[in-house]
Amino acid sequence: MEKLHIIKIGGQVLNHEAVLHSFLKDLQQVPGKKILIHGGGKLATRLADQLGQPQQMVEGRRITDADTLKIVTMVYAGLINKQLVAHLQALGIDALGLSGADMNCIQAKKRIVGAIDYGFAGDLGHDSVHADKLHALLHIGCTPVICSITHDGKGQLLNTNADTLAAAIAIAMNKRYEVQLNFCFEKKGVLRNSEDDSTLIHSLTEAEYHTLREEKVIHQGMIPKLDNAFSALNKGVHKVVIGHSMDIGPILLNTNNYGTRLGN
Amino acid sequence: MEKLHIIKIGGQVLNHEAVLHSFLKDLQQVPGKKILIHGGGKLATRLADQLGQPQQMVEGRRITDADTLKIVTMVYAGLINKQLVAHLQALGIDALGLSGADMNCIQAKKRIVGAIDYGFAGDLGHDSVHADKLHALLHIGCTPVICSITHDGKGQLLNTNADTLAAAIAIAMNKRYEVQLNFCFEKKGVLRNSEDDSTLIHSLTEAEYHTLREEKVIHQGMIPKLDNAFSALNKGVHKVVIGHSMDIGPILLNTNNYGTRLGN
Repeated sequence: MEKLHIIKIGGQVLNHEAVLHSFLKDLQQVPGKKILIHGGGKLATRLADQLGQPQQMVEGRRITDADTLKIVTMVYAGLINKQLVAHLQALGIDALGLSGADMNCIQAKKRIVGAIDYGFAGDLGHDSVHADKLHALLHIGCTPVICSITHDGKGQLLNTNADTLAAAIAIAMNKRYEVQLNFCFEKKGVLRNSEDDSTLIHSLTEAEYHTLREEKVIHQGMIPKLDNAFSALNKGVHKVVIGHSMDIGPILLNTNNYGTRLGN
Repeated sequence: MEKLHIIKIGGQVLNHEAVLHSFLKDLQQVPGKKILIHGGGKLATRLADQLGQPQQMVEGRRITDADTLKIVTMVYAGLINKQLVAHLQALGIDALGLSGADMNCIQAKKRIVGAIDYGFAGDLGHDSVHADKLHALLHIGCTPVICSITHDGKGQLLNTNADTLAAAIAIAMNKRYEVQLNFCFEKKGVLRNSEDDSTLIHSLTEAEYHTLREEKVIHQGMIPKLDNAFSALNKGVHKVVIGHSMDIGPILLNTNNYGTRLGN
């Protein structure tokens, strides 16, 4: 099967000249089909602050009221997405920016109100990702750049967690491609001590993950990312790696000692 | 030749429930291939005000400094584009939102600094619109929804006038399709008295336009739109109509007495 790299990046890639330069150069040099997925939480929070629109976070998830939905749509689908696309185009990568509404490629469901009302948060089901649409775009040579804004198919945009979205896309594309899912962020990978890069865990099984979580070695912020990652692996995604945005080249090329490789 | 409707709408379509409802219903009922083009100046100005970012306009054109470029990218490519796409998808129209950077469909040049520095303003040349990309999307059943953000091919986003963009796309698509270019705005069409709908001019030749302009019947705001419209006609676009967003159904169907039809 043909290889497909699914690369989840943070909005911070765009905020640091050196990281952006390194990331783009790496992407250009690694051959093969790719899909990029991004959020942009920090920039959205900054814009919300400038607009005097207080942001409420519960367990690391944003409460998306109507005004916040407008802000994340502007920042993710507008500013970050189009800047990324323009940079990729400059390198000769035929990028196409997408939200889930575009071509109806990802249809979510508004999260049901439980103990917490998350507002316009979009949850993904097993049939949310329309893999045929993404396949058609890859087939004509495009590199989809997908932001974490989805829709409900009834005209409502929704805010979806970008890590969850990346995992769902990896799972859906898995039938046609040998998928490697790469989570890039501002750390070297999963660290035993989040402040010390030398404590990088090179490989991690699900059993080891559960042990480290119980021992509180793996802290709160990493848990949703790792849950998404193992969920993807358990649903047949070939490989999942977590690492630094500046190491994306070696990570995509599976160079040893870069990032944390998950698997059993 | 197959017909193609190119429809330029203002961001105000999204601001008025009744206009949006009417516009979407009309679009759904008129068969055939379509491309939508939009700006969103009023919403961008409102966001700039909220952010305390003063906007400078010279002869109706926005001076696009770096911060203003971010604002228009967020509003046009993010908020307005994705809301339109989500609404169209809800009607079963397979909309795909695009900036000029996406698939490199429209490549502009940063306007040369003359007496006035317009900042990151993108001007279009005869080869700016990559018609093959838009044709490929129409061919697979997509309806492109294009915002007036373009790029220079070197990583820089640019702000391009939406009327000019619509005319350039109409001219470029003209080789493969019988193109009708429709400019929708908040008036019934070209009016002799801009405050009185009953003074609608039903048809207008270029000679008549020049006369009315000299007589100051046609006022400042309409001149760039009409210049773009006649430029498109002179370059082989089949038909150009200017009318109200709420009349888009009858305009697309060429019903008499709706809008101003331009031609000789």
